[in-house]
Amino acid sequence: MDKVRIEEQIKELGRVDCRRMLGKDFLLTWEKSDDEISATFLVAEILRGMRECNISSRIFDSGLGISIFRDNSTRTRFSFASACNMLGLEVQDLDEGKSQIAHGETVRETANMVSFMADVIGIRDDMYIGKGNTYMREVARAVEEGHRDGVLEQRPTLVNLQCDIDHPTQAMADMLHLINHFGGIENLQGRKIAMSWAYSPSYGKPLSVPQGVIGLMTRFGMDVVLAHPKGYELMPEVEDVARRNAENGGGSYTRVNSMEEAFDGADIVYPKSWASFAAMEKRTELYGNGDFDGIKKLEKELLAENAKHKAWECTEELMQTTRDGRALYLHCLPADITGVSCKQGEVAASVFDRYRVPLYKQASFKPYIIAAMILLSKVANPGETLRTLVAAARPRRP
Amino acid sequence: MDKVRIEEQIKELGRVDCRRMLGKDFLLTWEKSDDEISATFLVAEILRGMRECNISSRIFDSGLGISIFRDNSTRTRFSFASACNMLGLEVQDLDEGKSQIAHGETVRETANMVSFMADVIGIRDDMYIGKGNTYMREVARAVEEGHRDGVLEQRPTLVNLQCDIDHPTQAMADMLHLINHFGGIENLQGRKIAMSWAYSPSYGKPLSVPQGVIGLMTRFGMDVVLAHPKGYELMPEVEDVARRNAENGGGSYTRVNSMEEAFDGADIVYPKSWASFAAMEKRTELYGNGDFDGIKKLEKELLAENAKHKAWECTEELMQTTRDGRALYLHCLPADITGVSCKQGEVAASVFDRYRVPLYKQASFKPYIIAAMILLSKVANPGETLRTLVAAARPRRP
Amino acid sequence: MDKVRIEEQIKELGRVDCRRMLGKDFLLTWEKSDDEISATFLVAEILRGMRECNISSRIFDSGLGISIFRDNSTRTRFSFASACNMLGLEVQDLDEGKSQIAHGETVRETANMVSFMADVIGIRDDMYIGKGNTYMREVARAVEEGHRDGVLEQRPTLVNLQCDIDHPTQAMADMLHLINHFGGIENLQGRKIAMSWAYSPSYGKPLSVPQGVIGLMTRFGMDVVLAHPKGYELMPEVEDVARRNAENGGGSYTRVNSMEEAFDGADIVYPKSWASFAAMEKRTELYGNGDFDGIKKLEKELLAENAKHKAWECTEELMQTTRDGRALYLHCLPADITGVSCKQGEVAASVFDRYRVPLYKQASFKPYIIAAMILLSKVANPGETLRTLVAAARPRRP
Repeated sequence: MDKVRIEEQIKELGRVDCRRMLGKDFLLTWEKSDDEISATFLVAEILRGMRECNISSRIFDSGLGISIFRDNSTRTRFSFASACNMLGLEVQDLDEGKSQIAHGETVRETANMVSFMADVIGIRDDMYIGKGNTYMREVARAVEEGHRDGVLEQRPTLVNLQCDIDHPTQAMADMLHLINHFGGIENLQGRKIAMSWAYSPSYGKPLSVPQGVIGLMTRFGMDVVLAHPKGYELMPEVEDVARRNAENGGGSYTRVNSMEEAFDGADIVYPKSWASFAAMEKRTELYGNGDFDGIKKLEKELLAENAKHKAWECTEELMQTTRDGRALYLHCLPADITGVSCKQGEVAASVFDRYRVPLYKQASFKPYIIAAMILLSKVANPGETLRTLVAAARPRRP
Repeated sequence: MDKVRIEEQIKELGRVDCRRMLGKDFLLTWEKSDDEISATFLVAEILRGMRECNISSRIFDSGLGISIFRDNSTRTRFSFASACNMLGLEVQDLDEGKSQIAHGETVRETANMVSFMADVIGIRDDMYIGKGNTYMREVARAVEEGHRDGVLEQRPTLVNLQCDIDHPTQAMADMLHLINHFGGIENLQGRKIAMSWAYSPSYGKPLSVPQGVIGLMTRFGMDVVLAHPKGYELMPEVEDVARRNAENGGGSYTRVNSMEEAFDGADIVYPKSWASFAAMEKRTELYGNGDFDGIKKLEKELLAENAKHKAWECTEELMQTTRDGRALYLHCLPADITGVSCKQGEVAASVFDRYRVPLYKQASFKPYIIAAMILLSKVANPGETLRTLVAAARPRRP
Repeated sequence: MDKVRIEEQIKELGRVDCRRMLGKDFLLTWEKSDDEISATFLVAEILRGMRECNISSRIFDSGLGISIFRDNSTRTRFSFASACNMLGLEVQDLDEGKSQIAHGETVRETANMVSFMADVIGIRDDMYIGKGNTYMREVARAVEEGHRDGVLEQRPTLVNLQCDIDHPTQAMADMLHLINHFGGIENLQGRKIAMSWAYSPSYGKPLSVPQGVIGLMTRFGMDVVLAHPKGYELMPEVEDVARRNAENGGGSYTRVNSMEEAFDGADIVYPKSWASFAAMEKRTELYGNGDFDGIKKLEKELLAENAKHKAWECTEELMQTTRDGRALYLHCLPADITGVSCKQGEVAASVFDRYRVPLYKQASFKPYIIAAMILLSKVANPGETLRTLVAAARPRRP
């Protein structure tokens, strides 16, 4: 990318309305307007361009980015750290094993105690249905009040790094990858994307990836097809979002119970395992009751149910049925690869291998997406700020 | 806060003598002169003002702040990280589980090995009577020698983040809260503060909070009343400090065995559980002998003893007896709240709830206090340094 | 050190050819030319001088340094963090317990996922013969491909923080200590260094320290004598390197089976325990087969074998036999000190104590060595870059 392209994108940014993003959290993509989504893509691309041109994007002289991971994570952790570093923030991890965060007033207290100097808080909490997003909103309310009451000098911006409902940094990175792959957001119109369940020998993978995909990709005129075996339904309210998006955006949203049907003629395929919504709700209930024997029993049942659907695998044969046999294969990684990471999994080794480089590129957009979400929440006039940085052209590295 | 107020405070700073703080550690408040304590409050307030005016307080281009926590801690950890970040230092945690620090020559060696680029070392070691402060002085001696011998390019400043004797960053933050609440240090004269033991179902909370409070608050003309059941005495040498302070400063120090007496007409109340000094000494001895059965037995005895004093609770009725029924309630957090975090605890839920915002504000001063301690140890002419930063007015955030 | 001396060293740097270091990893000292080794020492010394003159050496505005430690480490961890901080990079640790790195494609994937913003990756992997260096090269290949394929904006430089074959940051720091001690690299010619095995009650210490020493110190005209009991041989290919170095550099490499013979008339002694190469190969095989009973059995055998050689201790008597009884004692720390850290160990307490300050100085060179390795890989014209930094003389600290 060169400076001319960056300047064009900054001009484009001036034409979209992102004023309401100032001071706002990024929790669900469907809480953002089309302009706001576009602004996020544009800023992510500008930041990427600046980095490639060795132009510093530090907008902070100092400050902290707090990460709260309630589930292990290497990729998201490093993406968040990268985004913070790019903007000049230092990451501090809140280790919950040590700090024992809970809900209610304890959340309010801890949220304030760690935020005295926090400009951003990134949270990943995807383990239990009905819990993750709720927890994020509790933290958001706490820091909002803390700031209003003069406890916090600044109001930290929350970024949802994956919850029970949505995975906005993933879905947005996925879509920016599509935009780059197909040469522009306008070229996504009419493309068919198959968001399909796939078999995995493991249990209880979050619903937030497929939900994030159908909740976002239905907005820009794509034909989104969700495929899964019966019993692996997503949250109904997210499907409602997808239907509404499709109506407004000129695309479509369909649900089928066959991987073959979804893949047929698709431009993009996203085969991935997830747990059934109903089972996850049951698990949350058992967990709430502290019924760990019940959880173990449920796990066994779910693995047995999963095993009935081993045929849901992204094979070479299936890939042949996509448009020109060359659909773009997506995955949030790590994938369960047949014969490699497990005996039988989500995808055939030869398919995965052929798409390895595009898959890594897909992931590489996430730090820029997170940085864009932060920047748009922190800067009143992002175009102006970015133009000034580009003009100053302070080198990032020697 | 505005720039005019900041400039006034910088002028005030010029009138106090803090020259001897250069290159010195901050281990016990009573090792510092009244001027040095005042300078710390002033610099903390100036740094807070600068942050509110979005003026960078980075005095370091690069450098490390090492934190050594020998006990879990979220609040102090984040306060230290915030203070370091504000000044331009990057935090590196020394994880003792991994590094197995011990006493003696091992302390000397490890202290040097982690300090080649360390400008500050913050230590929390409050678990055993006679150990924490001793350990800090061992580390201080080690880095002093290391610097003298040419091993360390710089002599890192030590900040006591809580030991067995004092908790200077807490007591100083508490007092800065009082200064702000009552509108100036001069308005603390003649105020009655009740530092009172309170019942908690947990065991062995450190003595350093009440000790820090009586060791500091007796200096500025306050009437400090310490209240606790018999057997919960503090370290005699710290009480001596409190008595001496009171004599020199025109205030008073009294000890009573009734929460009612302490609260009566008080301007400020600080009800909080702690372990008895004698029991903690016994525990240290058992620990030294590796007698873990003895420790368990002792724990049972102490909990039984504690349970005799459940009436020591900060209730609405007691609060009514304070000055105008409106004393300022303090706590270092987290508190044991009756019916919330435990069945019966240190404070009634309605009292705690009413003071939630002031409590959070109290905590919010700690990062600035720590940063002030560091700055005053690192800068020969703090007034000049701060004036230059304010004049430059480099923005901290966009 | 003063600015005049720094400028002289920068001039000297201009006379050595280090152009090929740009973009290259630092994995084995013997993959670098004599000029490149000299350049690394020079840059380390220049960086140390700059720090002493309070001149910032930040060459990065932002960026990440990733550390991957597959074995616990305090010293190396802090040295790497210090080096990164000195240059303006923020450290992010990859915790393998959480991220479960393995070999093969998983290495490729994880290496890319953590490197989107990584300028440097420091790896310590010294546990198994045939694994550590191989793993580093797998990571190197992965990020090389990632950069070529447009996945990574930059190609992170790898620094070997200890592998199964070499410990370049240790050996280079050791040698820079010698250069400083003897007043110049030219004064090392003809010096006798005894790299000797010594008894330790622990088991399986890595071979990479003695291998690093014989692989590096044979290059500059020193007489390197390796001493160990039969059965504690080093990797033959590293001995070949030592022999070749000695031939080319005018020094010598000898192997003896007596500590006495090695110490006799030595200028420098480096007594240190290590495991036998054959045993470590066996352990790697057992580990590969998941034979943990076999590993336990092997461990017992090795400890029994070790115990036969308790006489291999660096005593006062042995030190008396060195040149003028005053050889410089080296150790990579921590040492097993007789009567201090163990009943019987590598070195007598009185010997160790006498050399404590020089030992700490020896260790203090490591952060500068690591920073030099990074800088030389990142900067096209290091002399020019350093000259500009020195001229700008931006203060590092207040």
